Amino acid sequence: MDTRMNEAGSPAAAALVALDWGTSSLRAFLMDAGGAVLAERAGTHGIRHLPQPGPAGFRQALAAIAGDWLDAGPGLPLVACGMVGSAQGWREAPYVGCPADVATLAAHAARVDDAAQRPLWIAPGLLYEPPGAAPDVMRGEEVQIAGALALQPALARRACIVLPGTHSKWAWIEHGRVTAFRTYMTGEVYAVLRGHSLLGQLMAAPAQPEAVAADAEAAFDAGLEAARASRPGDLTHQLFATRTLGLTGRVPAHALADYLSGLLIGHEIVSALAQGDPAAQEDAPLLLVGEAGLTRRYAQALQRLGRAPAAELGNTAPQGLWRFAAAAGLIHTAT
Amino acid sequence: MDTRMNEAGSPAAAALVALDWGTSSLRAFLMDAGGAVLAERAGTHGIRHLPQPGPAGFRQALAAIAGDWLDAGPGLPLVACGMVGSAQGWREAPYVGCPADVATLAAHAARVDDAAQRPLWIAPGLLYEPPGAAPDVMRGEEVQIAGALALQPALARRACIVLPGTHSKWAWIEHGRVTAFRTYMTGEVYAVLRGHSLLGQLMAAPAQPEAVAADAEAAFDAGLEAARASRPGDLTHQLFATRTLGLTGRVPAHALADYLSGLLIGHEIVSALAQGDPAAQEDAPLLLVGEAGLTRRYAQALQRLGRAPAAELGNTAPQGLWRFAAAAGLIHTAT
Repeated sequence: MDTRMNEAGSPAAAALVALDWGTSSLRAFLMDAGGAVLAERAGTHGIRHLPQPGPAGFRQALAAIAGDWLDAGPGLPLVACGMVGSAQGWREAPYVGCPADVATLAAHAARVDDAAQRPLWIAPGLLYEPPGAAPDVMRGEEVQIAGALALQPALARRACIVLPGTHSKWAWIEHGRVTAFRTYMTGEVYAVLRGHSLLGQLMAAPAQPEAVAADAEAAFDAGLEAARASRPGDLTHQLFATRTLGLTGRVPAHALADYLSGLLIGHEIVSALAQGDPAAQEDAPLLLVGEAGLTRRYAQALQRLGRAPAAELGNTAPQGLWRFAAAAGLIHTAT
Repeated sequence: MDTRMNEAGSPAAAALVALDWGTSSLRAFLMDAGGAVLAERAGTHGIRHLPQPGPAGFRQALAAIAGDWLDAGPGLPLVACGMVGSAQGWREAPYVGCPADVATLAAHAARVDDAAQRPLWIAPGLLYEPPGAAPDVMRGEEVQIAGALALQPALARRACIVLPGTHSKWAWIEHGRVTAFRTYMTGEVYAVLRGHSLLGQLMAAPAQPEAVAADAEAAFDAGLEAARASRPGDLTHQLFATRTLGLTGRVPAHALADYLSGLLIGHEIVSALAQGDPAAQEDAPLLLVGEAGLTRRYAQALQRLGRAPAAELGNTAPQGLWRFAAAAGLIHTAT
């Protein structure tokens, strides 16, 4: 029997409604008891874009994206992760400390009720306090990590999971638990410099995209090399090279964005691979998780810097939400 | 006799009209043969805000800010520095290489003529090519450096001149010549992160400004300490601490901007003091040049990081322009 859901009906196999509920988007997954995704929907009702403010807005957004699934299966358990559990969310699920695994998340879930008094369980975020440095936090990625470990069980014993993005996360795993992690604002710094600084003004779109792929790759590699050669504090100096390399004709204007990207990704990798935190093992196998274009770019950068990733995965949030639900005793697993 | 000019008349002592002509502003100085400023004016006709495009716009802006000085003294020599000499300026005065001193600038000045066919001499910018790294450029600061060395001749033999700002410059001097320099985008990165990133959204204005000076200083120092402890590539990670320190209540929201400021200034200082370029002597005495509030902040940071500056100066552009004019043989010096 095909478990793919016909949107018009409710498959007998449905066992979970799982929500990845962020700041600007809401994704819903209908899953079976084995962890397979039967149906998937994406909406714009992130916690900052609700149809109305307050709990009623959250209930309305939930009904809009998954109401028919819940009508067809009124007993389906409901779980969520992401900013919906922040202080600005539906209900705060306070950060829990490291080491933590999916059982820790389940033990600290926060409960809210939907319009039909069905409980929705929200996963907490993680807090990590490295010795002698500022604390770090994640919210949403802890569930993606649980999903990644479910999909790559061989790496659960010892790994470093890299989730590139607006705020990239590097999480070190021992025996299935997150022991340490670090956030890098790589994507956001790239976006604000490109959108709002002098550097962005110098960047040009390529006239013939296909003819300049080699320029882009060379510029990206030059950024990585600058990062590899950097000393403490050098980044804001090396950023200015985006201007001087353009000004002196060494990097064409259509490839300056790639230099900036290589420089920022390179700095992230150089730092994360040698952060000196004993709870973050420098030589753990690397597992890249995220959108394919971005993980490809990071894989290229890691290879260039001498540390090829052991594996790459796409979005692992649904598998993580399923594991979270299973750990909370909400579904009877098929295995 | 008081050499301060009566704006209605022209003092017999006037010997030079000097212009500091940047992207968004134009400053004019009427100076005597001894290098003293007789009168000073500031206008908004930066090279991006001319009354009309092209050379006519430059001539019109010059006439608007200094026309009466030139009417009263038609033979006064005219000099300028800054973006007016860039490729986007009135006429390009191409960058000259290091080492360079004020005589080098004079030898490579570019000439344009005003509406009355009077020559205006524009100082070139400087280009520095460090071994094995991207080139660096300055345009305008080379004249401020000449002014600083004129005001602090004891430092001309060997010094490091620090000009904090949007794009901070660190310039190393030997025997009056700039031998090496480095740009840091500290001010611009601070502004774009504060204005356009998640970090800026977390910052709050203090309810009682006088009550929170201690918070601000502690946060600034915490940023400096993070910079001192940093390893290569750490900046985009440490930036995120602006968020986590606020989230965990360790730094109040009204002091988060000071943490960010301390972190970025600290990274600049840590890098500049140990850049490893043999043409930039790490232990040269430091001379801070710029707006008083900013040089005070840098002096505090330098002290905290163990390298108190030898001296601080305000805007040295007029003295630098005077030295440039003298080196070009345009004025008969009073000495």
